[in-house]
Amino acid sequence: MSRVFNFSAGPAVLPEEVLQEAADEMMDYRGCGMSVMEISHRSSLFQGIIDEAEADFRRLTGAGDDYEVLFLQGGASLQFSMIPMNFMHHRCADYIVTGQWARKAWQEASIYGDARKIASSEEFGFSRLPDLSDLKISEEADYVYICENNTIYGTKYHQLPDTQGKPLISDVSSCFLSEPVDISKYAVMYGGVQKNIGPAGLVISCIRKDMITDDVLEGTPTMMKYTTHANAHSLYNTPNVYSIYICGKVFKWILAQGGLAAMKERNGKKAAILYDYLDQSRLFKGTVRAEDRSLMNVPFVTGDKDLDAQFIREADENGFKNLKGHRTVGGMRASIYNAMPVEGVRALVEFMRDFEQRNERSVQ
Amino acid sequence: MSRVFNFSAGPAVLPEEVLQEAADEMMDYRGCGMSVMEISHRSSLFQGIIDEAEADFRRLTGAGDDYEVLFLQGGASLQFSMIPMNFMHHRCADYIVTGQWARKAWQEASIYGDARKIASSEEFGFSRLPDLSDLKISEEADYVYICENNTIYGTKYHQLPDTQGKPLISDVSSCFLSEPVDISKYAVMYGGVQKNIGPAGLVISCIRKDMITDDVLEGTPTMMKYTTHANAHSLYNTPNVYSIYICGKVFKWILAQGGLAAMKERNGKKAAILYDYLDQSRLFKGTVRAEDRSLMNVPFVTGDKDLDAQFIREADENGFKNLKGHRTVGGMRASIYNAMPVEGVRALVEFMRDFEQRNERSVQ
Repeated sequence: MSRVFNFSAGPAVLPEEVLQEAADEMMDYRGCGMSVMEISHRSSLFQGIIDEAEADFRRLTGAGDDYEVLFLQGGASLQFSMIPMNFMHHRCADYIVTGQWARKAWQEASIYGDARKIASSEEFGFSRLPDLSDLKISEEADYVYICENNTIYGTKYHQLPDTQGKPLISDVSSCFLSEPVDISKYAVMYGGVQKNIGPAGLVISCIRKDMITDDVLEGTPTMMKYTTHANAHSLYNTPNVYSIYICGKVFKWILAQGGLAAMKERNGKKAAILYDYLDQSRLFKGTVRAEDRSLMNVPFVTGDKDLDAQFIREADENGFKNLKGHRTVGGMRASIYNAMPVEGVRALVEFMRDFEQRNERSVQ
Repeated sequence: MSRVFNFSAGPAVLPEEVLQEAADEMMDYRGCGMSVMEISHRSSLFQGIIDEAEADFRRLTGAGDDYEVLFLQGGASLQFSMIPMNFMHHRCADYIVTGQWARKAWQEASIYGDARKIASSEEFGFSRLPDLSDLKISEEADYVYICENNTIYGTKYHQLPDTQGKPLISDVSSCFLSEPVDISKYAVMYGGVQKNIGPAGLVISCIRKDMITDDVLEGTPTMMKYTTHANAHSLYNTPNVYSIYICGKVFKWILAQGGLAAMKERNGKKAAILYDYLDQSRLFKGTVRAEDRSLMNVPFVTGDKDLDAQFIREADENGFKNLKGHRTVGGMRASIYNAMPVEGVRALVEFMRDFEQRNERSVQ
């Protein structure tokens, strides 16, 4: 067996220890004689798994009893509808559009009411965040929505916007549990797990309890009411049992590393290695304004499409996988989530340095 | 390692060969250096997995080019809303209520229009199907809905109702791929995979293409339009990658056993062993009218709650797991899905026979 360095934007690399445990427990979970894939979601065995996962998530994020932690299906894309259906009581909400996912969330909310794009960085190709110093929050807005880390463009809010008292709803899919959070700043913090936490097919939504009411838009399906899932503790219907099980293992792994503070240190170190190299390279350039750079997704280009393609091909042959950038940005993107080891980034930079040397003539 | 006989109603037993393969491939899927949990849903690797799963599903069911095969999230419970939102064009539909899941589907449809309960077996505690010989199909109905195998009550349609030309929509969750199907009789055949096919968190919906249009109810979320998923070949957003991978392996396993005809033979054999014993037992009794019995879920009782509890406890101690019946029926339920080996049912009956002898006095 030979593992590679996997820079996929999601689904993405998971801790090797977690995968090894999952393999070891596949035929017989802790002596029960069954795989976790085979156990009932109503069993005490699974109740133990989901309870422990929730407790560890709360330990990591500091979410107390005033927050619900829900394990849901349908991805962030289904949340794009659930959020207005549950929270747009006055049919008005403010959206800050910093990339494709924020835009999709905004467009979906427009089906249900007056979803206002109060700021956008589209004119810069989303290569930076918009100026947040003079945000015009709507008086009528039921909430303010952001996408906190933009997977495709590699930007990140390093400070949350001042919502002037309005509930802040944040999609944290691509920076989930990558650094300490002050949960009290969020009315809703949610994300798909398939980038930083676990296998695809699960969303974790951490919602301040006072936000969850039966006052939803007319025609909201039962499965799309947060009350349905909150009242049933995420077990209204069969959840994604196996993904919850793996996420639970990842939470334990993060705790064993030292929690979110340790994650931030490790992620900062990895990002610094890569950005420092990019900032002095004569061949490769980062595409994002320095102060808005993501610690998780690092897009970069050579400025030459053929050379980009050559780099991606050679990197792949050398065990650096999934470095191709999103088609809307082009070039390369290295996603360096929690589970990417520091050695992976070091090895990548070494390979880039070597590639740069070998292709110096092209740079002239 | 010691595997047990798992009679869970779902999530449920999976073929051992499938689990073993999944364990073996956990750290490195076929030499790619990554787990399937780590590979992008946009990668050619995953495209190969989903394409093969779809092709094998079509091979098993005979679904041709005139049907879409969609891999969706949210369980049957989300389909309960998607179905009226997409198909209730004239705001009228007929529902046959044969158990808790059919009732939930009917109640959910009532949010969106005139969902008519045209037949029900509620008065019999759902221990049989209603008389289908003189169904009054509504002229205005957009479709007729059934739940084909009732997991909780252990009944099954052994003949589909005559819908008088109306599209038939069937929830086949608990009899999915358990016997040959004539797909041409269905406008929609769908089910959660977590009973007969794979790990929870995935629904497969096989929909006749002419049913899928943009003419949906106002306010239908993008994620709940079948067109969204059909146009994107189930990859509009990140799907449940790992569940699709395991389902694909189960399809290969079914094909290797001889396909659905072989499944029917095997399932018929298992059910006969159990029902034949029940029919002559002085202690245990099946709860379902003989002609409506399910091949998948077999509820039975002793008639004495304490004795039921004793049986369940002793069975559990002897490696016969999850035999407790649903709380609305009480007693016991043995779910004997595709992956339950014949030996499992034989061993159970032997144990029941022994229990009967040991408790003969109680029967008097």
